Amino acid sequence: MKHLVKKSLIIAITLGMAAAGMAEEIDRNALGKTARALFQPLPSTAKIDNANPASKEQIKLGQMLYFEPRLSLRGNVSCNSCHNLASYGVDNLSFSPGSSGTLGGRNSPTVLNAALLGSQFWDGRAQDVEEQAGGPLLNPVEMELPDQATAVARIKSIPGYLPLFQEAYGDEDPITFANITHAIGAFERQLLTPSRWDAYLKGDDKALNEQELRGLNTFIEFGCISCHKGVTLGGDSFQKFGLINEPYWEFTKSKGHDDGRFQVTKDEADRFFFRTPQLRNIERTYPYFHDGSVWSLKDVAKIMSYAQLGREISDSEADDIVAFLSSLTGEVTDEMRQMPQLPKSGNERNIPMEYPQ
Amino acid sequence: MKHLVKKSLIIAITLGMAAAGMAEEIDRNALGKTARALFQPLPSTAKIDNANPASKEQIKLGQMLYFEPRLSLRGNVSCNSCHNLASYGVDNLSFSPGSSGTLGGRNSPTVLNAALLGSQFWDGRAQDVEEQAGGPLLNPVEMELPDQATAVARIKSIPGYLPLFQEAYGDEDPITFANITHAIGAFERQLLTPSRWDAYLKGDDKALNEQELRGLNTFIEFGCISCHKGVTLGGDSFQKFGLINEPYWEFTKSKGHDDGRFQVTKDEADRFFFRTPQLRNIERTYPYFHDGSVWSLKDVAKIMSYAQLGREISDSEADDIVAFLSSLTGEVTDEMRQMPQLPKSGNERNIPMEYPQ
Repeated sequence: MKHLVKKSLIIAITLGMAAAGMAEEIDRNALGKTARALFQPLPSTAKIDNANPASKEQIKLGQMLYFEPRLSLRGNVSCNSCHNLASYGVDNLSFSPGSSGTLGGRNSPTVLNAALLGSQFWDGRAQDVEEQAGGPLLNPVEMELPDQATAVARIKSIPGYLPLFQEAYGDEDPITFANITHAIGAFERQLLTPSRWDAYLKGDDKALNEQELRGLNTFIEFGCISCHKGVTLGGDSFQKFGLINEPYWEFTKSKGHDDGRFQVTKDEADRFFFRTPQLRNIERTYPYFHDGSVWSLKDVAKIMSYAQLGREISDSEADDIVAFLSSLTGEVTDEMRQMPQLPKSGNERNIPMEYPQ
Repeated sequence: MKHLVKKSLIIAITLGMAAAGMAEEIDRNALGKTARALFQPLPSTAKIDNANPASKEQIKLGQMLYFEPRLSLRGNVSCNSCHNLASYGVDNLSFSPGSSGTLGGRNSPTVLNAALLGSQFWDGRAQDVEEQAGGPLLNPVEMELPDQATAVARIKSIPGYLPLFQEAYGDEDPITFANITHAIGAFERQLLTPSRWDAYLKGDDKALNEQELRGLNTFIEFGCISCHKGVTLGGDSFQKFGLINEPYWEFTKSKGHDDGRFQVTKDEADRFFFRTPQLRNIERTYPYFHDGSVWSLKDVAKIMSYAQLGREISDSEADDIVAFLSSLTGEVTDEMRQMPQLPKSGNERNIPMEYPQ
């Protein structure tokens, strides 16, 4: 693929641009053709499956549950706490504090476009956003509910939810853990953020400026595309962090290190493997890597290039790649950032009053 | 006043209602007249002063700052964390965890209609919402910024804020602590929630049902109105918790006790004095009292009646008062619950990566 791409690009130095700093002009037509073969624009919505798309009622309910802090042990953490839609579906922290204030062990990825990824979590341990949604609820350092029954009991204790679950899932015992996570997933499937990049992929060659096109060209030529391609530019494969040069924590200056997917499979071949992150909105979903150890996207471009591809890139190449990546920053609409009105609690207090200090 | 009210009400038992449980019918005309003398409907907006109302640009900026977690030490707590507009401007917790996870010492009051109160905080130590907004930013168990300069430096480090501050406050050094808190206050001044109660005060006698009117009558007759009157039904005076019967913590089953306004004035006469809370949206701003020690509004009605007025009220009287109070639940509009899009951080990381465990 890499050779093919190289051959398909005609690199020409024009006198005009050379005067402005020896920049190379790229063949827009050839690059566009290559890009449209490697990447795809966002669909309008991420359907669970075509036969059974989410209903409006499920999406509306899911939006409420996404903002529902009573789904955490101490009633203080909702999905939106760590996947904050005011800031591109992340909290911009290395690690997120859970309901009792303990930090999680991995950086919270963005929920934007997450429904389109091949798997969920840094180690891919969930298949889809519905399965993912159940994870943090029960994680002992995230939302900390002791079990699924507690999640169901919490929601059942809030009288306003029953009619909404009935509208969304029918009358017969609709408040179940599966329906809670299904509804959250239904909401998350709406969180797609088209950008200039999609306009470009659909044929608008002017949607990206010269530097962004150079960055795209470099991105393809260097081989970043072996992991970061498709609709979400990543998120559908696993790769060792430190594939060519290791250990990764020397480059990221991480405090510790993380076995990655090995923790799930216990297969030695999976040690230090992580699901490759998507790159949509990457400019806004700092800090980077599974441990949020790196703040600057330019540093990330250099680390990835060296650790994964064995190649040291220049400052200007890194700048170009960062410029290209900024074209992946999409629109988070007012509708996506609309907080719901949460229903009133029931008569019995079921949130602990005390808090570990 | 109490006598006057009693005299002005004509209590009549009708045969029809007596058959349904000996309920008393009240004179709607007389009650309406009395109520309209004691209470006022909400204004359309809470102006800082008529000569200098907040501008649209200030309000929009204030909305962003209200949701801005980078105004907390660890980048994880915004105004909205404790004063959550998805749940009537409160977090429904007894005490709120701060940026490092330590709990605050008093229950977070609602931000809704707060701009109309005579003073801010449970001990009235701030005069208005602008002054209030600066408190949590620097409080060592809330947002935990070490000083005003850090708040200013944090906002200055986010490039997207400068043009917004310029639009709102002019070009000359617009990012100041005073402007940060002014903008937050400008946003909060929009958070007014008219309800059926306002329709009633404006002359719609049918806006309250029979039980609610009975509750209103009892509320007036018992003397609750000595503290809970005006536009916000409280919030403009201080009163000892346990005025007639004490100590309050025997009734609330509080774990400790709180000196209240004494902590501000060091005047022995202020011990156990608190600013009387407003009652608008009180149905939704549980748990109750300065320490969030009581979950049920009916229990609150009984405790207040006994501790403050020396009077034990019946179950049905408490039910009626709770019914009346539910008429104070107003509308939190979609616009109030709209999360902004927060601007991107600057190139230098200035949020601590570590977290006390």
